[in-house]
Amino acid sequence: MRTTEFSNRVRRIEALTDGIYAIVMTILVLSIDIPTFPAGTAAARLPHYLRHELWPELSKYVLAFITLAAFWIGHVQQYHHIRKINSNLIWMNIYCLMLIALIPFTTAIAGDYADVGIADRIFELNLLLAGLAYYGHWTYATRRHRLVDPSLDPEHIARTKKAMLIIPILSLAALGISFLMPAWSTAVYILIPILYHRDKIKKKLFSSNR
Amino acid sequence: MRTTEFSNRVRRIEALTDGIYAIVMTILVLSIDIPTFPAGTAAARLPHYLRHELWPELSKYVLAFITLAAFWIGHVQQYHHIRKINSNLIWMNIYCLMLIALIPFTTAIAGDYADVGIADRIFELNLLLAGLAYYGHWTYATRRHRLVDPSLDPEHIARTKKAMLIIPILSLAALGISFLMPAWSTAVYILIPILYHRDKIKKKLFSSNR
Amino acid sequence: MRTTEFSNRVRRIEALTDGIYAIVMTILVLSIDIPTFPAGTAAARLPHYLRHELWPELSKYVLAFITLAAFWIGHVQQYHHIRKINSNLIWMNIYCLMLIALIPFTTAIAGDYADVGIADRIFELNLLLAGLAYYGHWTYATRRHRLVDPSLDPEHIARTKKAMLIIPILSLAALGISFLMPAWSTAVYILIPILYHRDKIKKKLFSSNR
Amino acid sequence: MRTTEFSNRVRRIEALTDGIYAIVMTILVLSIDIPTFPAGTAAARLPHYLRHELWPELSKYVLAFITLAAFWIGHVQQYHHIRKINSNLIWMNIYCLMLIALIPFTTAIAGDYADVGIADRIFELNLLLAGLAYYGHWTYATRRHRLVDPSLDPEHIARTKKAMLIIPILSLAALGISFLMPAWSTAVYILIPILYHRDKIKKKLFSSNR
Repeated sequence: MRTTEFSNRVRRIEALTDGIYAIVMTILVLSIDIPTFPAGTAAARLPHYLRHELWPELSKYVLAFITLAAFWIGHVQQYHHIRKINSNLIWMNIYCLMLIALIPFTTAIAGDYADVGIADRIFELNLLLAGLAYYGHWTYATRRHRLVDPSLDPEHIARTKKAMLIIPILSLAALGISFLMPAWSTAVYILIPILYHRDKIKKKLFSSNR
Repeated sequence: MRTTEFSNRVRRIEALTDGIYAIVMTILVLSIDIPTFPAGTAAARLPHYLRHELWPELSKYVLAFITLAAFWIGHVQQYHHIRKINSNLIWMNIYCLMLIALIPFTTAIAGDYADVGIADRIFELNLLLAGLAYYGHWTYATRRHRLVDPSLDPEHIARTKKAMLIIPILSLAALGISFLMPAWSTAVYILIPILYHRDKIKKKLFSSNR
Repeated sequence: MRTTEFSNRVRRIEALTDGIYAIVMTILVLSIDIPTFPAGTAAARLPHYLRHELWPELSKYVLAFITLAAFWIGHVQQYHHIRKINSNLIWMNIYCLMLIALIPFTTAIAGDYADVGIADRIFELNLLLAGLAYYGHWTYATRRHRLVDPSLDPEHIARTKKAMLIIPILSLAALGISFLMPAWSTAVYILIPILYHRDKIKKKLFSSNR
Repeated sequence: MRTTEFSNRVRRIEALTDGIYAIVMTILVLSIDIPTFPAGTAAARLPHYLRHELWPELSKYVLAFITLAAFWIGHVQQYHHIRKINSNLIWMNIYCLMLIALIPFTTAIAGDYADVGIADRIFELNLLLAGLAYYGHWTYATRRHRLVDPSLDPEHIARTKKAMLIIPILSLAALGISFLMPAWSTAVYILIPILYHRDKIKKKLFSSNR
């Protein structure tokens, strides 16, 4: 289905992207600190740590993991329809990856300084920029069916474009909330799996073909 | 054999999964501490360390590596028969990976606090949840041959389902043992390669086709 | 298009290469230090850090990420035309990767000792050697069409050869500048995306076929 | 050429293997310590460090990188001819990878305690065991053409078997030397690229077919 000429480059882009996502998702766990206790107190203090202090760190890990998964699924959805590649698209993909690879850093900042408003905002800004980069990537690839299958349904293109706005819109909401209720701004990302499935439910209800 | 429509998504899921397993299995080694000795005492103390103190850490590394390998082999077995993919399965796979990527953290907790019962239990709980997630993943994919080859032998589906219960059952046993003989609970995972091969031996004995 | 005999080896080389690039590009972010502040001063000092002190580290991350992307794109361009592989080429590829995998180390040296001239020079020397290694790799593969498609246009070979000199030439320039204006030498790498696109623009203007 | 039935499993094994090698080869660089100097002395001490103290660390990096590359090339050579896979071979491959993933740990031990004989020996023992594991892997796969192409030349099988003994034999030599000249034992691995090419040269001289 893909032209032989380009399929190799598409495959390489996908391989680099999958590799970077796999690593970013895995090194997130390194942001959960392993506690150290004064000698002889571990038996008394570890259970308390696991029951009470681990949750904020663990919830941040879960949130960041799900957000990265949503970005990765968006990439899979885009490349499922991309048939050829050009130098501009390769560089746009690189810029997306540069913002994705920053997430472990901004997650760590947000985790270490949970009480400082700007720490969460730097994390939300990172996700906003990464989301917009993927929106631009899809817009570029599909403009006049530039790099996608010529027979691709324009309605599908528009629907995917809207899905690419989920994370940017959530990030704008989070940035707004961060000024009103600083402690709760990053919680909006918990809506990601729901929104992704809502999108799917709507698709099932309104489009019977496919 | 796989439908062209879906093969690309299956391949991407496999690539992300293989990448995450490769990284998790490799960073396990970082949980083995490199000892530091006071200046001038290394020649005297390193041999003692290697002969006596390294073994507990090394045995935990071997155990965790084998357990991860068993999970990975389970994934290969499942996707060997999965022909198409849907949004639910992608997210179930993500949840499995989220639990797998936690293993270096829970392994490190169990390694650092070997004398605290709850430390081993958090590791065993992690493996229990990951095992159940993979069991659910296979159950969802094969229910009424939803996403697998329509001609796939129902007996094979049931046999794979049982294999997916090996790690959850071992983890429940380990959790039980942890209350009776805290020092030995994680040792049950040493049975994994034996159980996997026993399964294979039984398959050879009782099913002559294939 | 590729001979069956060799395609498997080419694919493995590409997989190892994509994996190493993905990891190197991702661990670059670990070179950005997460600041630690005396207790109670984070709220006052983090905003200042993010607005003023983060930029030099972030700009080095962006620069190194783009340079690695340019090397990776060069590898993709070369292997797009390589049809078979021999033992010499595998080892040349290994030597290229050995220099690429050193980049996180030389980047960290250059980042930590920004005020010491030799620190930047060690980074630029690393890029110079890696660039020359890729130039040698392409020269070896294409000499008398040794390992590329026999019908590959000699003009295309020459053009790719020139593109492989972009990073070595920039590195020589950077090394020269480092003796005159030490603080600015690494800035020359910002020209990479421009030069890569300039090359593309020229190609569009002067060659109408393809 | 490969049976459809098994090609998917072979591909997954290769993907996991390539991923683990890519990570191990990349995290080797983390074993090169980034020096820290007292404030104000970096300009005076960094050049001295780079010119004199970096070499031993860098040479160990190069040595370990080349050895890992030789192991990886051996894996590629083996799987170039393996047509199907069984549960035993998967687990043998896992045991090989478990020994490969230990190399960053034993390299760090050997690097940090260069003056203690046993530190180098633990590194050499690691390579010896990994080499023997790969020898066993190939012997199992090719016995009566169990898992390789039935038409594979027995002479080629024997030649590959001998190539798999290069690292074990060098490791035995290194272990012997470590008792006579402790400081020089790991230097024997520098012979790897030469021996690999000698093998190729001999192959060219004595077998004209292919």
